[in-house]
Amino acid sequence: MTAVGIDAIEIWTGKLKLDLAETFAPEKGEDPEKYTKGLGLHASSFPDAHEDIVTMGANAAHRLMDRKGLTPDDIGRIDVATESAFDNSKPVSTYIAGCLEQVYDEDFHHANKGERKFACIAGTQSLDDAYNWIKAGRNRGRAALVVATDTALYARGDPGEATQGAGAVAMLITEDPSLVELSTDQGYGSADETDFLKPNQQFPSVDGKRSMQVYLARMREALEDYESVAGASHPEDFAYIPFHTPFPGMVRKAGLLGYRHMIRNTSVEEELAEEIGLQPREEDYEDREAYEEAIRNHMDDLKSTAEYQEWYGEVIEPTLSIARQVGNWYTGSVHIARASALKSAAETGVDLAGERLLVGSYGSGAQAEIHAETVRDGWKDEIEQLNVDEQIEGRYDLSFEEYENVHDRHNHDKTIEMEDFTVPDEEFVFTGRGRMNERLYDFVE
Amino acid sequence: MTAVGIDAIEIWTGKLKLDLAETFAPEKGEDPEKYTKGLGLHASSFPDAHEDIVTMGANAAHRLMDRKGLTPDDIGRIDVATESAFDNSKPVSTYIAGCLEQVYDEDFHHANKGERKFACIAGTQSLDDAYNWIKAGRNRGRAALVVATDTALYARGDPGEATQGAGAVAMLITEDPSLVELSTDQGYGSADETDFLKPNQQFPSVDGKRSMQVYLARMREALEDYESVAGASHPEDFAYIPFHTPFPGMVRKAGLLGYRHMIRNTSVEEELAEEIGLQPREEDYEDREAYEEAIRNHMDDLKSTAEYQEWYGEVIEPTLSIARQVGNWYTGSVHIARASALKSAAETGVDLAGERLLVGSYGSGAQAEIHAETVRDGWKDEIEQLNVDEQIEGRYDLSFEEYENVHDRHNHDKTIEMEDFTVPDEEFVFTGRGRMNERLYDFVE
Repeated sequence: MTAVGIDAIEIWTGKLKLDLAETFAPEKGEDPEKYTKGLGLHASSFPDAHEDIVTMGANAAHRLMDRKGLTPDDIGRIDVATESAFDNSKPVSTYIAGCLEQVYDEDFHHANKGERKFACIAGTQSLDDAYNWIKAGRNRGRAALVVATDTALYARGDPGEATQGAGAVAMLITEDPSLVELSTDQGYGSADETDFLKPNQQFPSVDGKRSMQVYLARMREALEDYESVAGASHPEDFAYIPFHTPFPGMVRKAGLLGYRHMIRNTSVEEELAEEIGLQPREEDYEDREAYEEAIRNHMDDLKSTAEYQEWYGEVIEPTLSIARQVGNWYTGSVHIARASALKSAAETGVDLAGERLLVGSYGSGAQAEIHAETVRDGWKDEIEQLNVDEQIEGRYDLSFEEYENVHDRHNHDKTIEMEDFTVPDEEFVFTGRGRMNERLYDFVE
Repeated sequence: MTAVGIDAIEIWTGKLKLDLAETFAPEKGEDPEKYTKGLGLHASSFPDAHEDIVTMGANAAHRLMDRKGLTPDDIGRIDVATESAFDNSKPVSTYIAGCLEQVYDEDFHHANKGERKFACIAGTQSLDDAYNWIKAGRNRGRAALVVATDTALYARGDPGEATQGAGAVAMLITEDPSLVELSTDQGYGSADETDFLKPNQQFPSVDGKRSMQVYLARMREALEDYESVAGASHPEDFAYIPFHTPFPGMVRKAGLLGYRHMIRNTSVEEELAEEIGLQPREEDYEDREAYEEAIRNHMDDLKSTAEYQEWYGEVIEPTLSIARQVGNWYTGSVHIARASALKSAAETGVDLAGERLLVGSYGSGAQAEIHAETVRDGWKDEIEQLNVDEQIEGRYDLSFEEYENVHDRHNHDKTIEMEDFTVPDEEFVFTGRGRMNERLYDFVE
C-alpha cells in the first residue's frame, strides 16, 4: 500500500528570547545550572508584539508552501493543533487560511479546516487524522497541512515559568512522502487525570509531581499497547526516539524507562546483570512498595552503565537540541524533537534512509501515543532546508524587565501596548482587533 | 470495500424546557408566532443544575453502550465535538471516559481520546475522523464513539436568545453499520468569515445578517464541490436532506437554495417554467445586482409552487421535528436532524433501506460540508430504540424567573447555587469542583 507520512516540515520560533542562565536565574537568585543542567534548558522563545499563534503558524506554513512550490489548490485539509486558542468557536485554521489567502491567488474554499485540543498531544492527533484521511481515499490527490502552534505561558512565579516557549511547526502530509512514513500501528495510554489543566483560564494549574508520574505511566501503557500490535521493541530497532519534551530533564526519565522496558528479558539485560543484577520482578517482592523501591534503585544503577549512556547519547540526546534553546512548544514539542534528531543525523553524516524512529507523543489530562516512522530517501534534502538555527540565533535577547512586559502583552486578561523588538520582514503580523473583537492580520512585504 | 458508518445513535436532551410561545414571548411582549412560525421553534432545552456538556455526553454514551451491549474494550476512540468547552487544555472526552469508567469494570486506557472545535460543524468532522480511522485500518476491530455535546447559550437579550438549546448526541461508528453508511465523497465550502465568534468569551458575538448569508454561500460551495466528485445531484436522489438547524427557519432558506440548484438544467426546471419561467441566468443581466434581484424574485415564485412544497414537505420538513422542541444544539444539530428524518420514516412506515440521505453540516467561521449516506437494513430496529420523545415530554417546564436562574447557573462568569428541578435517576451528575478547579462527576443509581 502507498506510503503516507510527512513530506516536509517548517519551524517558526517566536522572535524573542529569554536566556535562563544569564537573565532568569540571576533575577530569581538561582544557580543557572538549576535550569541548564536540571531542566536541560538554556532559553525560551517568546512571541514579539506582532506575533501570536496565528502569525507563527501562518509563517511556518507559508515558508513550507513556498519552498515546496505549492498553491492552495494542492491542499485539501488544514488542521491546527493548539492549547492556546483565543476563541471558543472559530478555529485558528480559518485565521491561518485567511492569512495565506492574502499572498496566493487561489483560495482554500474547498479545504477542510479544523482544530484539535488535547494539551500537547493534539499535534500528533492531527497528523494521524491527516494520515487516515489519505489512507481512506478521501484526499483527491491533495496534501494535508498540519500546524502545531502554541504560546506556552505560565503564571508569573509558577514553577513552570522556566519551561515556557512559543513557536509553530507546519507539516505537509502526503502520499509517497520525502521525510518519514508513518506506521499504521499505534499504541495508546490514556486516562482521566488531573495533572495539568486550564479551567476557563489561559495559564495552567499544574500538579508538578503528579504530572511527571502521569507522563511516565501513560507512556509505558502506550508502549505496551504499541508492542501488542507491532511486536516487542528493542533499543537497537530505532535510530532515534523523539519524545514530547516539556523540558529535556523529563525526557531523561522517559528514555530510562523505555530502555529498561525494552531490554527486559533480552540478552542486553543478561549482559548488564553481571554489573547491576537482573531487573527486579514484582513476584519476588512482598508488596508493591518494596518492589518499587527496588526498581528505583535498579534504575539508578542502569542509568550509570556505559551501555545505557551510549544508547542515550545516540538515540535520545540528539532529539533535544532545539528544545534546549526554545523551551516547551506544547503541541509542536515532539515535532521539533523529531526535527532535532534528523538535523543531527544530517549534520553528522549519518545515512538514515530506511532507518526507523519511535515517536512518543504526550498530552496532560492525559494521553500518550506511540508510533513508528520509517525515514524516506529524500529526508536529507528536506531537513537541510530548515533555517531554525538562524532563527534561534537571530532572536532578540530580552532583559528581565522586557520579559515582564512581553508576558503581560500575551496575557489575555491584560491590554498592554508594546513596541516591537524586531522588524517584520516578509511575514504575517497581528495588527489589532476588528469590530467583533476578531484578531486582524496583514502580510508585511 | 467494507461499509463504514453510523451503527447506532443516542440522544440526551437537557432536562429543562423553556416554552417560547407560552413563557418567553409574553415576557418579551412578542407575538408567539414570531418564534413558532418565524423561527420555527416551540421550545429550548436547558441543562438542570446537575447537568453540563460532560453529563449529557456521558449519559448519551452510556445509554448507547448499554443498549448495544458494549464494554470499554470495544471502543478504540472517543472523540468529543463541542464549542462549549470549559478547559483550554484537557479535553471533554477524558471527563466522559472518566464517568463511564465509574460504571464499567474495564477502562478506556487504550482508546484515543480527542476534542474538535469548529462551531457547529465539529460533530461531523469527528464523524469523518472516525470513518477515516476505520478505513485506514487502524481500528483493530474496535468502534469509535463520537459525542457532540453543547450548551448553546447566548447573552441575555441577544437576538439569538430564542434559539438556545442544550443536549448531546452519541454515535457509534463501525464497519458494517446498522443505521447508515457514509459516502467517501465529500464536498467542502469554507472561508475565513467573521459572522459568529467567541473571542475569549462564553457567549457568542453574532452578526445575524452576515451569518445567514455565509451559511447559504458556504453550503452552496460545498454542494458544488460535492457534485464535482459525486456527479450532479437531483431532488429525487435523496429520501431526506438533514441540514444543520440553528433554527428551522434557516433550513427553509437552505432547502429552497438546494432545490433551485439541483433542478437547474433538468426536466423539473422545464416543467416549472410554464408556471414561473426558467431560472435567471447571470449572462442575461446587465450587472450582478440586477441578476440577484431576479434570482430573489424567482425564488419567491419557486417557493410557492406545488412541486417545491411537496418536495420540501417530504424531504426537509421531517428533519426538523426534534429541533422544533429543543432548539439549537450546535455540534449535535445536524445529527438530530438526521435522527428526526429516520424517526419520521419509521413512524410513517416508509421503507428506507437502501435509500440515500444528503447531509449538510455547517459551522460559523465558516465551513459547510456535504456528504451522502445510504440507509442500512437495520435502520428501523435501531431508530426505534430512541426514547427522545419521552425525554422531551418529561422535561421540567421553566417559568421565566426560573429560566433566568438557569441561565446564570450555566454562565461561567457567575457562581450561582441552584436547587435541582428534576431528580437524577441512573445517570451521571455534576457534583462540584476539586482542588485544581476540575469538574467532578458521580453516577447516581
